[in-house]
Amino acid sequence: MPDTINEWAEKVLAGNRRAVARAISAVENGDAAAVALLKRVFPSSGRAQVVGITGSPGVGKSTLVEKLAADYRRSGLRVGIIAVDPTSPFSGGAILGDRIRMQSLSGDDGVYIRSMATRGQLGGLAPTTQDVVTMLDAAGCDVVLIETVGVGQDEVEVARLADTTVLLLVPGMGDDVQTFKAGVMEIADLYVINKADRGGAERVEQEVTAMLSLAARPDGWRPPIVKTVATSGEGIAALRQALEQFRAFGEKDGLKQQRRREHWRARLLELLRQTLFKKVAGELLRHGLLDSHVEEVLAQRRDPHSLVEEMVAEFASPGRKRKSPKR
Amino acid sequence: MPDTINEWAEKVLAGNRRAVARAISAVENGDAAAVALLKRVFPSSGRAQVVGITGSPGVGKSTLVEKLAADYRRSGLRVGIIAVDPTSPFSGGAILGDRIRMQSLSGDDGVYIRSMATRGQLGGLAPTTQDVVTMLDAAGCDVVLIETVGVGQDEVEVARLADTTVLLLVPGMGDDVQTFKAGVMEIADLYVINKADRGGAERVEQEVTAMLSLAARPDGWRPPIVKTVATSGEGIAALRQALEQFRAFGEKDGLKQQRRREHWRARLLELLRQTLFKKVAGELLRHGLLDSHVEEVLAQRRDPHSLVEEMVAEFASPGRKRKSPKR
Repeated sequence: MPDTINEWAEKVLAGNRRAVARAISAVENGDAAAVALLKRVFPSSGRAQVVGITGSPGVGKSTLVEKLAADYRRSGLRVGIIAVDPTSPFSGGAILGDRIRMQSLSGDDGVYIRSMATRGQLGGLAPTTQDVVTMLDAAGCDVVLIETVGVGQDEVEVARLADTTVLLLVPGMGDDVQTFKAGVMEIADLYVINKADRGGAERVEQEVTAMLSLAARPDGWRPPIVKTVATSGEGIAALRQALEQFRAFGEKDGLKQQRRREHWRARLLELLRQTLFKKVAGELLRHGLLDSHVEEVLAQRRDPHSLVEEMVAEFASPGRKRKSPKR
Repeated sequence: MPDTINEWAEKVLAGNRRAVARAISAVENGDAAAVALLKRVFPSSGRAQVVGITGSPGVGKSTLVEKLAADYRRSGLRVGIIAVDPTSPFSGGAILGDRIRMQSLSGDDGVYIRSMATRGQLGGLAPTTQDVVTMLDAAGCDVVLIETVGVGQDEVEVARLADTTVLLLVPGMGDDVQTFKAGVMEIADLYVINKADRGGAERVEQEVTAMLSLAARPDGWRPPIVKTVATSGEGIAALRQALEQFRAFGEKDGLKQQRRREHWRARLLELLRQTLFKKVAGELLRHGLLDSHVEEVLAQRRDPHSLVEEMVAEFASPGRKRKSPKR
């Protein structure tokens, strides 16, 4: 017999892996149960530190995330990992499966890994990403690492969602700071120069330092630059220390709360947009009204703007149907 | 003294160039007057043939559009041209101005040219494109040509909006049919191989023919392949003939109506989405409710899904405020 929502929620809150995995799938598939579950577990969320890790393809994000997660595990912390993969144009799913990722973490009960597809071929986080974070958070993860592919809008989106944003650079990839996508350099709270054993790491560091010296952040934080060699684990301890410093800084004078406030503000508006539309469009389709409206526009009898205003007014005061203009 | 909406609309319907230009600007800026104007002129629209012209950067779209427009003009038809340019990351406006485009058409009172920016850096038609088409259509344009830059989603979007979609290819640009962006090859009703005086035109033609032979279109239309040299005007007459054949085909068995039906269906839903959100979000902001909702979520007192459901319910039955759950 399947669990009731309450039983399912209890299992999620207890960190039961199967229950968490099913809950995340329910969120991704837009099941009605997911919303019921989210309502139940939400009060127990908000504790996890959410870290976004971004950078161009090939800079070694997955390896760094794997090593960082292992380091957190050694301190006894529970870790959730969301790996955002570009949507495959063929399957509609994520290209890299959870299974082939981060092999060294497999079999560890304190690590939850989930691959998520991007919103489309052009990148961007799936709209359900926050709900997946909430599930992992409520399931007792102390840290949620979100690895994004660095395509399209996703760096900016992950920076909005995360408490801390880490930007990975590597020497000699033509990723000169000067040519970096506009707006991406500025979103990072921490810079990592990975593959720092390669020549050119100093040059990248100088470029980032020069860029950072151009303008002080309004919050007063001076983003540190950490050099790592993720494959060997070099620099991972320094990265954790830098992450901890930023966490402490953010909690001291309300910066973290302010970021979360801005995030929730945007998230509530987005959820409102989706929910409103789903409800109104659903009613239109159920009553077959959309088709008749389309025919009126097609026949040039009604203009789309008046029609839509009328639909919105009808929704806002149901039953009080407005007089139809003469045909 | 400025015109009333009625005076302005009369001038648009009479094809007054200044009035049309101001109307399009009002649409692009989202002025309240634009909607009032659109409502007035909409019944006089729906007559223009809307042709989308797309293809990768550098295939010669602008030159082809210029020559095609001149050809229509020689037959006494009025032509509207919407040139969709990539948004400049610097100015937020279109990169190429109307003035430097299509010099040979300047001074012709029967041609209306407007550059529009894409929706963002990633391409895509601006949401106001249909309203600009409506204005040009109502102003008496017999043909509206929409030239899109071939970036991101805009080919697919223009195919939804237009009665006819023309895809430009050129020999030897690495634009091999096999490597073309998925879904783009299939949207065209007509193929143009421009710069056909270059070597390799036959090869492109063979590739398109081979692709078209793979699957018959459900509507039975066999897309013609027209070879042009836009700079010299060669093939423009053949292109017009092919366009005319497709128009006749589309009108014969309701294909054109069916396309417009699908377009208006999508457009009404999109307009509904925007209008609903604007109204509800506007009310929330006006009453300062959003901020207090955000604080409740931030304090983990309310989950975002329940809150949004409540906002939607409140909007649907104003005054009948739902009981708040216990805090």
